[in-house]
Amino acid sequence: MKKIGFIGLGHMGNPIATNLVKAGHQVTVYDVVPEAINALTAQGAQPANTIAEICKDSDVVFTMVQTGEQVSSLCRGDEGIFKHISKDALLIDCSSIDITDSRSLHTEAESLGIAMIDAPVSGGVAGAKAATLTIMIGGSEENYNRAKPLLKQMGKTIIHAGAAGNGQAAKICNNMILGISMIAVCEGFNLAKQLGLDTKKLFDISSKASGQCWSMTSYAPVPGLVESSPANNGFKPGFSASMMLKDLLLSQRAAQTNNAPTPLGAEATALYELFVNQGNGDIDFSGIIKFIEGS
Amino acid sequence: MKKIGFIGLGHMGNPIATNLVKAGHQVTVYDVVPEAINALTAQGAQPANTIAEICKDSDVVFTMVQTGEQVSSLCRGDEGIFKHISKDALLIDCSSIDITDSRSLHTEAESLGIAMIDAPVSGGVAGAKAATLTIMIGGSEENYNRAKPLLKQMGKTIIHAGAAGNGQAAKICNNMILGISMIAVCEGFNLAKQLGLDTKKLFDISSKASGQCWSMTSYAPVPGLVESSPANNGFKPGFSASMMLKDLLLSQRAAQTNNAPTPLGAEATALYELFVNQGNGDIDFSGIIKFIEGS
Amino acid sequence: MKKIGFIGLGHMGNPIATNLVKAGHQVTVYDVVPEAINALTAQGAQPANTIAEICKDSDVVFTMVQTGEQVSSLCRGDEGIFKHISKDALLIDCSSIDITDSRSLHTEAESLGIAMIDAPVSGGVAGAKAATLTIMIGGSEENYNRAKPLLKQMGKTIIHAGAAGNGQAAKICNNMILGISMIAVCEGFNLAKQLGLDTKKLFDISSKASGQCWSMTSYAPVPGLVESSPANNGFKPGFSASMMLKDLLLSQRAAQTNNAPTPLGAEATALYELFVNQGNGDIDFSGIIKFIEGS
Amino acid sequence: MKKIGFIGLGHMGNPIATNLVKAGHQVTVYDVVPEAINALTAQGAQPANTIAEICKDSDVVFTMVQTGEQVSSLCRGDEGIFKHISKDALLIDCSSIDITDSRSLHTEAESLGIAMIDAPVSGGVAGAKAATLTIMIGGSEENYNRAKPLLKQMGKTIIHAGAAGNGQAAKICNNMILGISMIAVCEGFNLAKQLGLDTKKLFDISSKASGQCWSMTSYAPVPGLVESSPANNGFKPGFSASMMLKDLLLSQRAAQTNNAPTPLGAEATALYELFVNQGNGDIDFSGIIKFIEGS
Repeated sequence: MKKIGFIGLGHMGNPIATNLVKAGHQVTVYDVVPEAINALTAQGAQPANTIAEICKDSDVVFTMVQTGEQVSSLCRGDEGIFKHISKDALLIDCSSIDITDSRSLHTEAESLGIAMIDAPVSGGVAGAKAATLTIMIGGSEENYNRAKPLLKQMGKTIIHAGAAGNGQAAKICNNMILGISMIAVCEGFNLAKQLGLDTKKLFDISSKASGQCWSMTSYAPVPGLVESSPANNGFKPGFSASMMLKDLLLSQRAAQTNNAPTPLGAEATALYELFVNQGNGDIDFSGIIKFIEGS
Repeated sequence: MKKIGFIGLGHMGNPIATNLVKAGHQVTVYDVVPEAINALTAQGAQPANTIAEICKDSDVVFTMVQTGEQVSSLCRGDEGIFKHISKDALLIDCSSIDITDSRSLHTEAESLGIAMIDAPVSGGVAGAKAATLTIMIGGSEENYNRAKPLLKQMGKTIIHAGAAGNGQAAKICNNMILGISMIAVCEGFNLAKQLGLDTKKLFDISSKASGQCWSMTSYAPVPGLVESSPANNGFKPGFSASMMLKDLLLSQRAAQTNNAPTPLGAEATALYELFVNQGNGDIDFSGIIKFIEGS
Repeated sequence: MKKIGFIGLGHMGNPIATNLVKAGHQVTVYDVVPEAINALTAQGAQPANTIAEICKDSDVVFTMVQTGEQVSSLCRGDEGIFKHISKDALLIDCSSIDITDSRSLHTEAESLGIAMIDAPVSGGVAGAKAATLTIMIGGSEENYNRAKPLLKQMGKTIIHAGAAGNGQAAKICNNMILGISMIAVCEGFNLAKQLGLDTKKLFDISSKASGQCWSMTSYAPVPGLVESSPANNGFKPGFSASMMLKDLLLSQRAAQTNNAPTPLGAEATALYELFVNQGNGDIDFSGIIKFIEGS
Repeated sequence: MKKIGFIGLGHMGNPIATNLVKAGHQVTVYDVVPEAINALTAQGAQPANTIAEICKDSDVVFTMVQTGEQVSSLCRGDEGIFKHISKDALLIDCSSIDITDSRSLHTEAESLGIAMIDAPVSGGVAGAKAATLTIMIGGSEENYNRAKPLLKQMGKTIIHAGAAGNGQAAKICNNMILGISMIAVCEGFNLAKQLGLDTKKLFDISSKASGQCWSMTSYAPVPGLVESSPANNGFKPGFSASMMLKDLLLSQRAAQTNNAPTPLGAEATALYELFVNQGNGDIDFSGIIKFIEGS
């Protein structure tokens, strides 16, 4: 049993914190939305009114918010985590944020003698509920090992991606490839259809050939091919187009800051942005096939 | 044992025809390059001087050339296959050509009572030599079944993709997805490197995650990850960048003719064209990572 | 006064042929749609039932249709123009078609001793009505000079772009640059708006700076900047998005056939195709700003 | 005569500060590179060792550096401009930097009662020397009017683009359109060449038609068309490819932060990044035609 402080109880934070409560930990929770706190106290968590209360006596403090600016404002300042967290505690940032922001926080934490890892997750709300998330860790081997038993109660695959910020790096590199290959599959499936080639036939061929990719064989964007695909469920996410866009934008910021040309990553980002701006942000990201098809 | 006429003895035609000779068939061969004919007669094939000779008494006539124009000129006219092939024979076009050209030839063949299939192959020179090609068939079920035993002596995976031209359609849809996903992997690997994330680490993570694709897990474009990758062999093809460009150009022609938008397919085509025009056509197509890296 | 045969009486052919009638020529007309013929006979043209009638005694024969296939079927075969046109006449193809198709027709015409030019037009229906078209000519200097007085009655700017097919080449090169720069202006205007920079201010600055282009200064895609812009008229064309897409597709076919990489041309084509496929083909091509804005 | 402090004496800062000295102002200068200071003192400027010295008694303080981080570190902290500048003075940031960074500095300056404008310039080293720069101002009307007489001694066109940060916004919107249209012209010129259409002929046609743009008519990327073009001078800049890339990257950061899709802007950025990474950063930005041509 650990004493855990948890900040950020949204779509992802809620089920993760719930799992930690269920695992028997003493969890103190905070969010800017009071209802979000209430939802967790109903599960057995303790409410907190300030970051200082979250930090007090906690062995581990989690943050799970939307942006680097939010993590920064939670960590920094007189009311922040860096000021109030115990020197014996571990700070785990599960947010998906800009890698430069993440590394800046790591550097400051290290200079203050605070143990920290970045630990962005993938797997969506369903994965958070089922505790089957993939969690990618950036930080020291030692801190990775400290966190691992706890993270195992939140996810299935816990991977040490390297030094500070590398959890973020791994997530955005993977998801950039994912976003591109999903559009590639949509283009290929639509082209096949227009050419009079049955989609199922292309699926059967490419699944076992050089066009194989997870977007096709585990998440096919047309109904009837892969049972668990959102395509069979009206493109209800799953992993929403707006979440994919967020990760693609992070990949582009990282790429542009680090002199790494990503011509297809850039184009995939633009296409998801056009798609989301047309009002499709809440659709599963595989629903971009409708945009490609013009349907 | 079949009597086979074989036209087109280049990089691909040579090993395929050789395998047919070795399988015990009586093979008559033709090419515009005399040396190409000699290379086959040295293996036991019979030389022919005209298409009429190729067709005479043949149970099966193969064509394996570069462009739709070439197949058309072989088939049409007073000296062509359509005029000289037996009504009992089967015409198998193994060339990778424009789908409209292919269907036009099918239509004409059918009107003349000539049995024909399109049967483009993938697997490269190595696959042709080892008789491990994947062969995608367009044409009637009946003609597919007639061809299958023979094609089994040339390749490992023989697939009926549907009606006339669908062999071509399947190949270009698959290879368009392949070309895009290869560049996606190159972008992701280079971005990881620039972010200080070890390529091997990203490989380990993404191979089992949503970024997984054949270009990564079976053909990784950096050394040391997948043993059989051309990256371990100085990017010696394998499947050359210029052959990938040819297939991408075919995909774009098909897409544009059939009102199927392929924004990433178009961009991948342009990138391969820029890469090939800089003198890299003979490098394996995974070598485009050098272009992305700027190395 | 010339005796003129005119084939193809659609949106463009109708006003052009009408202008030729008004200029005092004896015009015989043909179209597959009887109503289209009637519309011209009401203006004083003579109807024809066959291409042979069109060609008989004509000094000049015009074709103004949609595709290279259509021009080819008008020209070739026993009922075609090549068979029936007088050796003293001039054939003027005003259609915008694939450059390879155009050159193939030129070659055949030349071998038959028939004088021919390609003369695609730009300026839209409004330009056709007002006889202010820009007409780009491909063919010999001699044939250009023969055609010029007549073309001056249809358009304002008559340009000799060079040898056979170069009229087509000039049009698609120009229009590819146009399509790209229009999207560039839309992206720039929308970015300015999102950044809180008044569009009018950006217009004032860039109009006199290095971002200046015709798409901005003569055809601005937002209301209130350029009086004649379709943006001031609900994006009523003008030059429709589907006509722009047609020209972009021609540019891509030419580029891909001739080993000329056009990464931005390819992307602009894909964007117009996505836009048109969403049902916007009849909107002016500058209306793509709605697609960029997500409005 | 004004008392001026000037920080940042690189390629651009040097000639601008020199012009201010020549105009009779009392200029105190600072740079991290001692030689850069010496070069200005040789022109009659006074050297300073600290920002405090620069600010002391100055009516105007200029900053002309590379990045938002640099401007921030010059302005903030105990040794910074915000601490030492007179409340009666005007701070003019001529750097081209991220718009968010610029606005953050404006906000802080305003809260401290410091008058500030952003005033990025375009026109390159040649324009800086000749005092013909275009200078785009963001800030209050009042501060714009205060700065204008001085800026008139540095540039020819002084434009008020609106509130804080809008100088930056105007520059990057303009230059994004510029970068895209330059590549568009390169693609069009190369396509023309491959089609056998003389570049000069396309230039003559498009210069007066809908493909017209500054990149073509004032800065044509092939020799012999526009006398002042770097193409006539071996692509010696002018405006270097790396400076264009910097502005495109700024445009992409702004676009992505502000939910403004720029598919062609993104692609142009990737192309310039590939071009620069191949070692072409010091070539004029119009030299990207070599990349498109594959020469």
